[in-house]
Amino acid sequence: MKIAIDAMGGDDAPEVVVRGVIDYFKEQRFRSLLKIILVGKEKVIRKELRKSAFDPKGMIDIVDAREEISMREHFLSYWRRREQTSIKKGLDLVKKGVAQAMISAGNTGAVMAISKNVLGNLKRIERPALALMLPTPKGHSLMLDAGANVDSKPKNLVQFALMGKVFLENVYGIEDPRIALMSIGEEEVKGNELTKKTFNMLKSLNINFIGNMEGSDVYSGDADLIVTDGFTGNVALKVSEGVVETMQSMLKKEMGNNLLSKAGFFLLKSSIKRVRKKMDYAEYGGALLLGINGLVIVGHGKSNAKAIKNAIYMGKKFVAENVLEKISIEAEKVQSVLKEYKYV
Amino acid sequence: MKIAIDAMGGDDAPEVVVRGVIDYFKEQRFRSLLKIILVGKEKVIRKELRKSAFDPKGMIDIVDAREEISMREHFLSYWRRREQTSIKKGLDLVKKGVAQAMISAGNTGAVMAISKNVLGNLKRIERPALALMLPTPKGHSLMLDAGANVDSKPKNLVQFALMGKVFLENVYGIEDPRIALMSIGEEEVKGNELTKKTFNMLKSLNINFIGNMEGSDVYSGDADLIVTDGFTGNVALKVSEGVVETMQSMLKKEMGNNLLSKAGFFLLKSSIKRVRKKMDYAEYGGALLLGINGLVIVGHGKSNAKAIKNAIYMGKKFVAENVLEKISIEAEKVQSVLKEYKYV
Repeated sequence: MKIAIDAMGGDDAPEVVVRGVIDYFKEQRFRSLLKIILVGKEKVIRKELRKSAFDPKGMIDIVDAREEISMREHFLSYWRRREQTSIKKGLDLVKKGVAQAMISAGNTGAVMAISKNVLGNLKRIERPALALMLPTPKGHSLMLDAGANVDSKPKNLVQFALMGKVFLENVYGIEDPRIALMSIGEEEVKGNELTKKTFNMLKSLNINFIGNMEGSDVYSGDADLIVTDGFTGNVALKVSEGVVETMQSMLKKEMGNNLLSKAGFFLLKSSIKRVRKKMDYAEYGGALLLGINGLVIVGHGKSNAKAIKNAIYMGKKFVAENVLEKISIEAEKVQSVLKEYKYV
Repeated sequence: MKIAIDAMGGDDAPEVVVRGVIDYFKEQRFRSLLKIILVGKEKVIRKELRKSAFDPKGMIDIVDAREEISMREHFLSYWRRREQTSIKKGLDLVKKGVAQAMISAGNTGAVMAISKNVLGNLKRIERPALALMLPTPKGHSLMLDAGANVDSKPKNLVQFALMGKVFLENVYGIEDPRIALMSIGEEEVKGNELTKKTFNMLKSLNINFIGNMEGSDVYSGDADLIVTDGFTGNVALKVSEGVVETMQSMLKKEMGNNLLSKAGFFLLKSSIKRVRKKMDYAEYGGALLLGINGLVIVGHGKSNAKAIKNAIYMGKKFVAENVLEKISIEAEKVQSVLKEYKYV
């Protein structure tokens, strides 16, 4: 098994990417069956690899890619030099069957666009979407789309719902998952044009549609799948991060030099740490680009080494469990469902 | 000075509304210059008032309203019986000049629609928006629109920006406020159709436009005003609430019966309490419906007595400081700015 990793992707690449890969190999007790192909500027990667005393003998290949796409770049600006970028070369490896999955914490828009171009969508899926597992006190909820698209149409959201259902059933063994639509009120009549139309379509389908879900319930665990457009999904995720950070910095400020509060914080530390671990995106590694004809995992731009390492575990699981094959087969059924309801 | 309050508005009305009013009067050391007019089912209100031992002698009037609009109702369903609802009757009092402001924690869509109908918009403001003060470690940021509209157009968002600027300058004395546009990336090219068009318009205006702001920075305090459409604004706020609740319940679960953790929590309690107080919507009372030709404050549907009490303080401040007059004068200038740029 081989997984390609975009060594140049993410705010702190290539340092954290290489460290994440090394950390992965350090954790393997036995000889790993998985090889990693680091794609990016070979010299820079070699330099990073030399920083570590640990030598994952022969387990890391390097594929040189002269160009990289920055986090801030727009679609149009990288299109001309697509052949030599680390994202393109990584995806080519998947296309050729050299690697079975590709991981990038780089520019999400670029990964999405180039994935579509190189690997194509699953048969008749119009728009792939980012499938991200959110932590809840009861376990997890899948958010789809977590930010791959903007300006989605109702039929896209319906496709997300059906793809998500297939994913949860086949990868996580959740039978007939509870599907909710993110909106601004629980009632059918609440929402914008997009959600109201989508609501009507979802309720007509033979799925376990539990209705609208407000932002306050996203982390409740009351739904297995939360369907939303990528703009709203991204805002929801980023706001969540912001709230956690703000509360923490406010708490530190409030504690000030009060010794009792500091002692309290010390005693509470392990509990707080476990909560933060549950809420930490780094624990989840990344999000799957669901709907692409290949396994592409997108990491958070702020990915640290732990996030990269966990993305590798995620990719390994998806490859080992034939996730792509399972989803492909089911995705064709999605299409016939949509046709039956005249939604395509 | 008189303020009308929708006694039937909110999830826990009329109990918490009446209690909030009584709590307000309890706090007044001297004879209050403010009278409250409770609007709703008179019998029910009188029953609630009798529950309290405290008697705010002659400071509370009651205006009977036979009908109420539930939190779950849609626009169309309450329209037929609009004459007798507590929201309509409360707004009529403002229209007639009997009350100088109206507070409702009821159905936001209904308050918005009936306000427009009874009081009208400020001259040539197309869509009023909910102006909500968010807590940040550095102070506050105003979010506009926090949920009054769905499916706004770029020119609406530009009007929100200009109205918000006027509000912050005239009510909070913030000179040339920093205005940000909520989006999914800091760069100009990131966002959906709505935000990209709005970005171009905002940057052409003679305002302190600091560009796009991601969800993660909403609570950073880096902007004085965050402009967004009501759908996204509402999701952002509700998700924030959900995250705080989830973290708390996770922390409780993690602490379990661990005595050290519990002791730590006890020592940290006062700091946590102060942070929660800062993040608590109840501290802020409500949000102003900016753009309506009258002072209308909308409370959170889950308002408790404290939120109602603080909404009264907010209304009192707005009335005392002639907020409506100041905004009206400036709002006409907004229009000429938009005309100059051919945005209307």
